[in-house]
This record gives sequence, structure tokens and C-alpha cells, in this order.
Amino acid sequence: MPRRSLEELSSDECFALLGQETVGRLVYVDDLGPAAVPVNYALAGQGIVFRSEEGSKISALREHDVAFEVDRIDEASHSGWSVLVRGTSEEVEFEHLHELLSRVTGYVPLPWKKGIHRIWVVITAKTVTGRRLADFADEDFF
Amino acid sequence: MPRRSLEELSSDECFALLGQETVGRLVYVDDLGPAAVPVNYALAGQGIVFRSEEGSKISALREHDVAFEVDRIDEASHSGWSVLVRGTSEEVEFEHLHELLSRVTGYVPLPWKKGIHRIWVVITAKTVTGRRLADFADEDFF
Repeated sequence: MPRRSLEELSSDECFALLGQETVGRLVYVDDLGPAAVPVNYALAGQGIVFRSEEGSKISALREHDVAFEVDRIDEASHSGWSVLVRGTSEEVEFEHLHELLSRVTGYVPLPWKKGIHRIWVVITAKTVTGRRLADFADEDFF
Repeated sequence: MPRRSLEELSSDECFALLGQETVGRLVYVDDLGPAAVPVNYALAGQGIVFRSEEGSKISALREHDVAFEVDRIDEASHSGWSVLVRGTSEEVEFEHLHELLSRVTGYVPLPWKKGIHRIWVVITAKTVTGRRLADFADEDFF
């Protein structure tokens, strides 16, 4: 299997990829350190929107910075990309929900899990970075 | 699409799932807050082993607790599972590498990316948790 070169993605490419996917990983810090859990989301403008229920994850988001990671990896070909949004999260007040959702193109994140998910959260990016493990023509092993 | 119930996985189930996969997300904290990046890994006993090169990620691992997240999500059926290992990381000294790798069953993590990856890291779990979004017979919407 050839090893591949790592290509940095532009911010525009990162947001285009975020807009194509529907599942990412909420990355947060709580008393035990860093953690990540998959959530389904929508991209609204440049905000990552998801729904949750009250709990330790939401408490942790209120106190710390947060990140959101999305990737698509092809294990067979050892290729793929990943995007990391780093920023802050805030809970969306009901009166702002309509405006926020009007910016969502397509998919709106209905929770997959049973239960009550009253809290809408939006993550606003401070930085967005992405990488692609791409094919390269001249194989150049180390 | 029916919404699904969330089932907690046992530690044994979590490690069995970790042993089936080859790509997960290293979850760490640096000066900008939490972050996550995909890496290919192997399970050696109950340790998560991966290779890296010197850089900000490795520096961050030296100073903080760490996590490792693996999931498999089927977006079409809204089902899947995720496992989160939370613990500490250490760099493996050369003289311990053989012993560590002797515990790897099958796949050994050769980096997919070109370049020199001299540093072997093992994550030792303090906690392992996992969840599965499973089918349920009696649909019970909220």
C-alpha cells in the first residue's frame, strides 16, 4: 500500500465537506479530560447545529471551549479527509431558532435516539482546519 | 425513520469492537482547547497503539489526559455504535516495543501518511464506555 501525502484544505473546502455530511464528533472537556461522541448535525451558515438533552455533556459545553470533528476515511485505500472546527458553543434561544434553521440547507438534525432533546446547540468556529490524505504519483517512501 | 434506543456496552464489548477497527480519533487538549484527529491504530492487549511524528499533538499528549474514540455509524439506517477510551498516553521506549507489538493480534499500524513516524504511543484506559443505537420493536416516539 503506498503511503500518501497530507494536503491541507482551505476553509472553503472544509465548510463544503461539513455541508455534505450529517454525522460528526462533538469534542469537549469535562472533569475526566477530553472526550468525543458522535452526534448528527446540520451546517447552518458556518455554524454546526445539533440537538441534545440536559446532561454532563451539555454542562461541560457551558464551561469550556469545544471542537467538532468530521471525517470520511476509506480504510481499503488508506485515503480520506478530516475537518476540525474549534470554537465555542452556545445554546440557541427559542426565538433565534427559526432564523438559525433558515440558514440550514437541506437536512435538519432530528435526533436519532429516542427521548427528549430540547436543547439546540450551535458551535461557532474560531478556527477550521482540514487535511486530505491524497494520492500521489511518484511514490516516495521513507 | 424510527428513533432508536441507546444501549450501553460492556467493557468486553467495547474492547471487542476496538479490536475490529483500524481507524479512530485521537482526542486531546492543547492551548486552543479540545481537538480530535483520525489516526490508524492497533489494539495491543487493552492498549491503543499508534505512530506519530514530533509536533504539537505529541507535545499536548505529554501534558494532559487523552481519549480515543472509535465509531461505526450507518447514516442510512440511523444505527451504529461508538466507543470512548479515556486515559493517559505514553511514548513507548524502543526496548519495550517488541513486547508491546507481540500483544497486537493482526494489524500493526504502519502510518498511511508519508514521512518519518518515529514515535510510538500507547494509550492506557482509565475508563472505557460504549453505546449502541439499536433497533427496538415497539416504537415509542416523544
